[in-house]
Amino acid sequence: MNIQLFKEVANRYKVVFFDSYGVLRNYQGVYPGVREMLQSIEKDGIDYYVLTNDASRSPQQLAESFYTKGLPEITEDKIISSGMIAKDYLEHKINSGKVVYMGTEQSAHYIETVGLQTISISEVDLNDVEEISALVLLDDEGFDWNLDLTKAVNLLRKKSMPVIVANTDTTYPRSKEEVSIAVGGIADLLEPLSQKTFIRFGKPDSQIFNFAYMYVNGIKPIEKKEVLMVGDTLKTDIIGGNKFGIDTCLVLSGNVQAKNAELLIASTGIIPDYICSSVTT
Amino acid sequence: MNIQLFKEVANRYKVVFFDSYGVLRNYQGVYPGVREMLQSIEKDGIDYYVLTNDASRSPQQLAESFYTKGLPEITEDKIISSGMIAKDYLEHKINSGKVVYMGTEQSAHYIETVGLQTISISEVDLNDVEEISALVLLDDEGFDWNLDLTKAVNLLRKKSMPVIVANTDTTYPRSKEEVSIAVGGIADLLEPLSQKTFIRFGKPDSQIFNFAYMYVNGIKPIEKKEVLMVGDTLKTDIIGGNKFGIDTCLVLSGNVQAKNAELLIASTGIIPDYICSSVTT
Amino acid sequence: MNIQLFKEVANRYKVVFFDSYGVLRNYQGVYPGVREMLQSIEKDGIDYYVLTNDASRSPQQLAESFYTKGLPEITEDKIISSGMIAKDYLEHKINSGKVVYMGTEQSAHYIETVGLQTISISEVDLNDVEEISALVLLDDEGFDWNLDLTKAVNLLRKKSMPVIVANTDTTYPRSKEEVSIAVGGIADLLEPLSQKTFIRFGKPDSQIFNFAYMYVNGIKPIEKKEVLMVGDTLKTDIIGGNKFGIDTCLVLSGNVQAKNAELLIASTGIIPDYICSSVTT
Amino acid sequence: MNIQLFKEVANRYKVVFFDSYGVLRNYQGVYPGVREMLQSIEKDGIDYYVLTNDASRSPQQLAESFYTKGLPEITEDKIISSGMIAKDYLEHKINSGKVVYMGTEQSAHYIETVGLQTISISEVDLNDVEEISALVLLDDEGFDWNLDLTKAVNLLRKKSMPVIVANTDTTYPRSKEEVSIAVGGIADLLEPLSQKTFIRFGKPDSQIFNFAYMYVNGIKPIEKKEVLMVGDTLKTDIIGGNKFGIDTCLVLSGNVQAKNAELLIASTGIIPDYICSSVTT
Repeated sequence: MNIQLFKEVANRYKVVFFDSYGVLRNYQGVYPGVREMLQSIEKDGIDYYVLTNDASRSPQQLAESFYTKGLPEITEDKIISSGMIAKDYLEHKINSGKVVYMGTEQSAHYIETVGLQTISISEVDLNDVEEISALVLLDDEGFDWNLDLTKAVNLLRKKSMPVIVANTDTTYPRSKEEVSIAVGGIADLLEPLSQKTFIRFGKPDSQIFNFAYMYVNGIKPIEKKEVLMVGDTLKTDIIGGNKFGIDTCLVLSGNVQAKNAELLIASTGIIPDYICSSVTT
Repeated sequence: MNIQLFKEVANRYKVVFFDSYGVLRNYQGVYPGVREMLQSIEKDGIDYYVLTNDASRSPQQLAESFYTKGLPEITEDKIISSGMIAKDYLEHKINSGKVVYMGTEQSAHYIETVGLQTISISEVDLNDVEEISALVLLDDEGFDWNLDLTKAVNLLRKKSMPVIVANTDTTYPRSKEEVSIAVGGIADLLEPLSQKTFIRFGKPDSQIFNFAYMYVNGIKPIEKKEVLMVGDTLKTDIIGGNKFGIDTCLVLSGNVQAKNAELLIASTGIIPDYICSSVTT
Repeated sequence: MNIQLFKEVANRYKVVFFDSYGVLRNYQGVYPGVREMLQSIEKDGIDYYVLTNDASRSPQQLAESFYTKGLPEITEDKIISSGMIAKDYLEHKINSGKVVYMGTEQSAHYIETVGLQTISISEVDLNDVEEISALVLLDDEGFDWNLDLTKAVNLLRKKSMPVIVANTDTTYPRSKEEVSIAVGGIADLLEPLSQKTFIRFGKPDSQIFNFAYMYVNGIKPIEKKEVLMVGDTLKTDIIGGNKFGIDTCLVLSGNVQAKNAELLIASTGIIPDYICSSVTT
Repeated sequence: MNIQLFKEVANRYKVVFFDSYGVLRNYQGVYPGVREMLQSIEKDGIDYYVLTNDASRSPQQLAESFYTKGLPEITEDKIISSGMIAKDYLEHKINSGKVVYMGTEQSAHYIETVGLQTISISEVDLNDVEEISALVLLDDEGFDWNLDLTKAVNLLRKKSMPVIVANTDTTYPRSKEEVSIAVGGIADLLEPLSQKTFIRFGKPDSQIFNFAYMYVNGIKPIEKKEVLMVGDTLKTDIIGGNKFGIDTCLVLSGNVQAKNAELLIASTGIIPDYICSSVTT
């Protein structure tokens, strides 16, 4: 296994997409040296963006969180989230009615900005579903799982509607050893019980990569071969980047440990173009 | 589609296994005429048993519930539940330690009768998992889904242990139109997130049929061809009975409506030996 | 269910994407009236393209086939196939080595145009896999399933490499009542046996929709709301178009029959924006 | 990881069930010392049986194969195969018509012994399916995959019938490094394409364990706690034995290598009661 220096890898590209968790930060905060790395590649003329499976907050709120954690470089315009793709979908495809959301009020406020009326799953009355036009899964918090998971199944049995999963991740880390169940895991529970086909946004699905690529191309013209995706997860960042046709760099600072990297790559057949210990080495 | 009279079908057998819900009763109570039917087949020398995917209560408590609903004929010794199979497993395979349960205290009391110490998932301390020897899913009630589903995933990541799902059903009806998520649905959520192989008991798995068959054979010698399974669900009662090698009778008083029966049988390839409108016609 | 006239639906858009099979043609040939319909919408200033899950031939060969069947309007430049997306991937991501293909020689010639060396799975020597850099599934013909499906599994166990599935369809119709197993079905067999993650191109995956959208935008600027996807299959054409954020029209001339349309839409939750009997009514 | 001596483990039981491949033999023949081990445990009063997922031959032919390989101790009456369970099913549940088989003529002869008429999938005429009453998958050889896999899908689309998979294994080893696709793998391809629910026999399904347990009990009365299942595969032998409620012993002479055993047990949650290097150490 050939471990390369991240700086040398990055210098071959004009644009770098970073995953957030496990790459720039973890549950304790931003990794030491990340700020300096970002400043350095920017000085070298490399643009960078954060591609994150997150629909719990707006890009503005995500940027505020980076600011608080000591990374003011990551401003709102540098963030591309799966929530943005979900919002884009709602804007194009849902023209009327109420959108039921599973998530916090904060997550709902973001999708309301396209002019849609929202209602929390907790407040839905199953005897009055006429006006409901879609169900969107935004966050694992903000509702009562004992009551509202069953309510979501019954809602979908009563009325056929698009179901949007705004984050494909099934778990997320909440400490060094423990995970929490994420929106994608809840979707995996509800989909077979309701027997509907859900629409999922977020890495590895190519739509978020395409959204990011189009977005960057609106700022300066680039080609796919000039873009690098940097991530810590083979099954989202690396396979997603590979499939979209851009180069990929696995960093060993998150989900994949150095000692297991070779085995995991061989056993999944998901092959990054580069492997680096971290973005700061 | 050839609809037959249940009495005529039953008379060809020495033993009849009935599913409970959708066959003998629904959410409103016991179907009219069921008591008379049971008395009549008993008079004709046919033994009958209830095979039910239920691990929330002991057979004694299930019998009490039938008594309360006006069916005193269904005594404890006539009930074979998936919970009994789970208890049997725990007795044979778990010799020490604490068994963590997801379910009500009532459901735990039943499995405690084999001499095992139990602890509710709600009371588990993830920093003290040394003594835990198994996780068993008994009921969808009795714990906080927001907290305890994630806790179960983390428990299984911390320590490898057998996971027993004592009821394979993914939903159960709670009113004419609505369902609740059952233990089997929760297991379908937890299994991929914890990446363990769970052990599931209950129809259509053959272990409950075999348990019932052995149990009956302990009372009087019978052969498989003398046993009839009566159920309202193709994917549990009928395929399970077929696979076990006994004859099967679909009744149209529960999950399968008369107008869809032919289509459902053709589209699943699950073919009952008989079809009856109900056990009382 | 509101059945609309296709001409009236199409007139609301600037660009129409047609699925091929079940929409413009079936196993017997082009549907009567399709040529006139295409000429008519062209006269009205509507551009149209064919989006097809096919990797067995080049767009040029697909166009020749339309020509032979009496549809000279569908020229090479009007065809977007999943094979094009696969070729695009190979061009961007595979730089050296030999690409093993499952399919006919004809299908291989097309992907060779990006400068890659190809070798049929039939000719692979499992003791000499050093130079092999990828496996690509192009067509269900051209190799011996008894020998070569097992050979593909063993190839992937010997060497980790990207596996590209250039057509996601699992079956295709070969007569009024019968189907053939397609490349996507073979991929569903090989993927779990080899325990690798395959990369799949073709509807409903958004990459082919995005490719088409970018391609059209290179000719004239359009927005998503000006594009209509017309298809006969809910699980590919309609969900794929919906997810990509364009409007969708289900035609009842192929996979979905009029009498089942309402039930299928309700039971899958895949909701087209319009329903038409066919593209010629 | 506590590695124990097999002889000491076996001596705690009255009956031992052995898996065949990877336990008693591999593709090269019977492991050295196996014959002596069998003679030794027999002398100690321990009965033994071979539980194998194999439907390609009759128990008599399997016994002949052991004889040829130098293990005359394993006579016909010591073999319990998944094919026997399938034959038992056919005898109980299929009363008339022709049974279509996928496999060799040899495999068909065995199931014909219950008095059923068989026809190879290769000889089925899809325009004459009236008399066909079941499809049974016996062996991966004996038919043309290019033609007959598709024919099987179309047969199941034309007529609803029970489909019996007489061996659940998806692959089997054909040399030190290579595998062949087995009947269970073919079933995994056909089941979703035909949208039917197949009936599968063989480890880990409890029906073969129960068949063996009943068979042994017909010879001498035993209890579950007196029986040991010995196997090299966690996902079939060990989880199957565990679920059935008997003790299990993993040997490291086949699918699981010593260096990976601990990791595999932890990552699957399938926990054997004992681990031995082999049955001869």
